[in-house]
Amino acid sequence: MSTSLEFLIESLRRLPGVGPKSAQRMAFHLLQHDREGAAQLSRALYQAVDTVHHCAKCNTFSDIEICELCADPERDHTLLCVVETPADQIMIEQTLTWRGLYFVLMGRLSPLDGIGPRDLALDKLVNRATDGLVGEVVLATNFTNEGEATAHYISEMLKARGLKVSRLARGVPVGGELEYVDAGTIARAMLDRRSA
Amino acid sequence: MSTSLEFLIESLRRLPGVGPKSAQRMAFHLLQHDREGAAQLSRALYQAVDTVHHCAKCNTFSDIEICELCADPERDHTLLCVVETPADQIMIEQTLTWRGLYFVLMGRLSPLDGIGPRDLALDKLVNRATDGLVGEVVLATNFTNEGEATAHYISEMLKARGLKVSRLARGVPVGGELEYVDAGTIARAMLDRRSA
Ligand SMILES: [Zn+2]
Ligand SMILES: [Zn+2]
Repeated sequence: MSTSLEFLIESLRRLPGVGPKSAQRMAFHLLQHDREGAAQLSRALYQAVDTVHHCAKCNTFSDIEICELCADPERDHTLLCVVETPADQIMIEQTLTWRGLYFVLMGRLSPLDGIGPRDLALDKLVNRATDGLVGEVVLATNFTNEGEATAHYISEMLKARGLKVSRLARGVPVGGELEYVDAGTIARAMLDRRSA
Repeated sequence: MSTSLEFLIESLRRLPGVGPKSAQRMAFHLLQHDREGAAQLSRALYQAVDTVHHCAKCNTFSDIEICELCADPERDHTLLCVVETPADQIMIEQTLTWRGLYFVLMGRLSPLDGIGPRDLALDKLVNRATDGLVGEVVLATNFTNEGEATAHYISEMLKARGLKVSRLARGVPVGGELEYVDAGTIARAMLDRRSA
């Protein structure tokens, strides 16, 4: 087979959830039916690797030093919501219940996967939460075992520094992942948030 | 959200079978955990679009004018096997039962999808099969309705030009797609091929 095609199939397998058959199907599809799409995806990947960094304040993906949301003077800068991923942040934004800012962990504590406190940007979170403006931190990590453990760890860490810490109410089903929960449930859980 | 990230998510959706949630998950994974993989995939896509063409003889994907298989003097140049896709060709090669050459249609007749005889490289196939060397053409299109119709159409076309045309035996389950059938079944079907 074509060397370039083999390299493409091998490279497509770097995508999560893509096995050998899927990678082959994707490569054939792009080359036979959508070369323009392939070229666009090539450019998009190059551009993203080149320009996407982490916001200096909230740690989410951003093309600029401080993301638009963190720089928005209309948001309440005394409230900080901690989430695991940008997808969770998007979900919460969609509920229209949160006027504060965010901190995105880009992960969760997961001893089984070897992800400990040092692998998350917890120092960055502490610095962010103790800027003198933030008065309350809402922990909106997932209600999985790992998300709960992460919330507990962060709660202890921030309460030791005199911050008020709360947790989303358990309107979210136990074991549920925020990204797949409907907006109404998340909205209710946000309103019912409890002291952590 | 980051503009570059949005562009990446949108571009990942050009891949077959990738919806909005998968595209988002893929983009986050690449940017958070595998930027090297993202850069590699970018290069692989660029290179493939730039260098992968169709072999002048067998029509499959190739980086060179005539692919290695078509140029191999050890293969039997009097035998030509017609398949729908490069994946089918790979499957037949894996059976180690075929010493002849191939012609890859890169599709099948599919009136419902608006794919008629003019959309396949049938002129190229006729030229290839009437090179004066080819004595037998084995039709190895899928045993789906569309594959059978394609085989029938090609059979009539080539028999009208005096060629011997055969079809893989129905060892392949009716409705089955070659790509997903085990090699043993395909090997038996190749040995039992019948005049078409
Ligand atoms: Zn930010
Ligand atoms: Zn060839």
